[in-house]
Amino acid sequence: MTDIDILDVKAGLEEENEGYARQVRAFLAEKDVRFINVMASPGAGKTTLLCRIIDAFKDKYSIGVIEADVDSDVDARTVQAHGAKVVQLHTGGSCHMDARMTLAGLKALCGEAASAGSSSDTALSSRPKLIFLENIGNLVCPAEFDTGADIKLVMLSTPEGDDKPLKYPLMFTVADIILVSKIDVAEIFDFSLERFEKNLRTVSNKARIFPLSAKTGKGLEEALRYLEQAADRK
Amino acid sequence: MTDIDILDVKAGLEEENEGYARQVRAFLAEKDVRFINVMASPGAGKTTLLCRIIDAFKDKYSIGVIEADVDSDVDARTVQAHGAKVVQLHTGGSCHMDARMTLAGLKALCGEAASAGSSSDTALSSRPKLIFLENIGNLVCPAEFDTGADIKLVMLSTPEGDDKPLKYPLMFTVADIILVSKIDVAEIFDFSLERFEKNLRTVSNKARIFPLSAKTGKGLEEALRYLEQAADRK
Repeated sequence: MTDIDILDVKAGLEEENEGYARQVRAFLAEKDVRFINVMASPGAGKTTLLCRIIDAFKDKYSIGVIEADVDSDVDARTVQAHGAKVVQLHTGGSCHMDARMTLAGLKALCGEAASAGSSSDTALSSRPKLIFLENIGNLVCPAEFDTGADIKLVMLSTPEGDDKPLKYPLMFTVADIILVSKIDVAEIFDFSLERFEKNLRTVSNKARIFPLSAKTGKGLEEALRYLEQAADRK
Repeated sequence: MTDIDILDVKAGLEEENEGYARQVRAFLAEKDVRFINVMASPGAGKTTLLCRIIDAFKDKYSIGVIEADVDSDVDARTVQAHGAKVVQLHTGGSCHMDARMTLAGLKALCGEAASAGSSSDTALSSRPKLIFLENIGNLVCPAEFDTGADIKLVMLSTPEGDDKPLKYPLMFTVADIILVSKIDVAEIFDFSLERFEKNLRTVSNKARIFPLSAKTGKGLEEALRYLEQAADRK
């Protein structure tokens, strides 16, 4: 019984994911695409935000969206109606997107199969410049998986409460930017930006905070400017 | 290469969990305790609801709470201040409670170690009659794990939107009762109970719906009556 190999299944999975994440990064660099992983609780406002971003940018950039859902295609239809190029991925019960699924989504959006061997102007102009991944609504699991994204964007809606960085620390640790959504109703839910920032700073010094309301448009400009700079970055 | 055993890791985990869930059920029957698994998104109002339940029942039943958190003890302190017997379980990054963790929590709450071999009146009276598990805030993973609970209680807050049964179908399929919380602000978020019920009925015919506001107390009575009947059931 001493010669039995013990497999660390989790470590194996992480290593495999890292391999795919490297492939994602190489693919993004080759295609000159910026890729943003959007993570939040269910109902925080991810889809509404994406619609606002698509509306604001559609004359400037071609936008792609990978919609990750356990099962449905509700969000994909909404986002598509706003003019984005959409690919729907069903995770079949899985609670997060990993880099392998992401790579498949990116290739589908960039027409990898259709435009193989071709580099016509049409193929280039229809290729998205900014691609968003709308991850599964979940503050735990998606934080654990590197999808190879350039930016990890976390949304927190004010009805969820300003204590969330204390309770879901990994998500707030990995975030590059945090969009505090539904800021127009913060008062109703006794959500304090000051308390939120204090709680956030116990787990992260890097994340920038953008309070906004996708509904009223308040605060949206600054977040859009951040994304614009990211899109134009080489 | 033909004699290699192939292990279905997921099936193995499920089987192991089912074994622990059976132990949980036997333990609950032996101790005459009713056990309720409370599941919801982050910030849906699980802790506030539990505080209201404890306040309402504390002269009638001894209440126990298993607080499952990735890392913190914010909720455990809140619930304890309302007079419940609390045990804090840290899942260490895990996105759900399984039956093994649950069994450990139940034994700790029922003073299994301390009162072993004793059946004094004190031990009996301090033993909780109703035990709540406040699961990790997550609409995906906790739905997959049977914790051995008598009742699966799902909360959905109106800011999350009335389309959630379509997007997190398993959670709404397994639910015995659904508490639609923050009903006092439903209008602000264009949440329609009718649409919610229509969406729910596409995945479940069994779940009863209780709209309520833990903040204003509206609708709370009916949910409390349901829990009271459950507590008194043999």
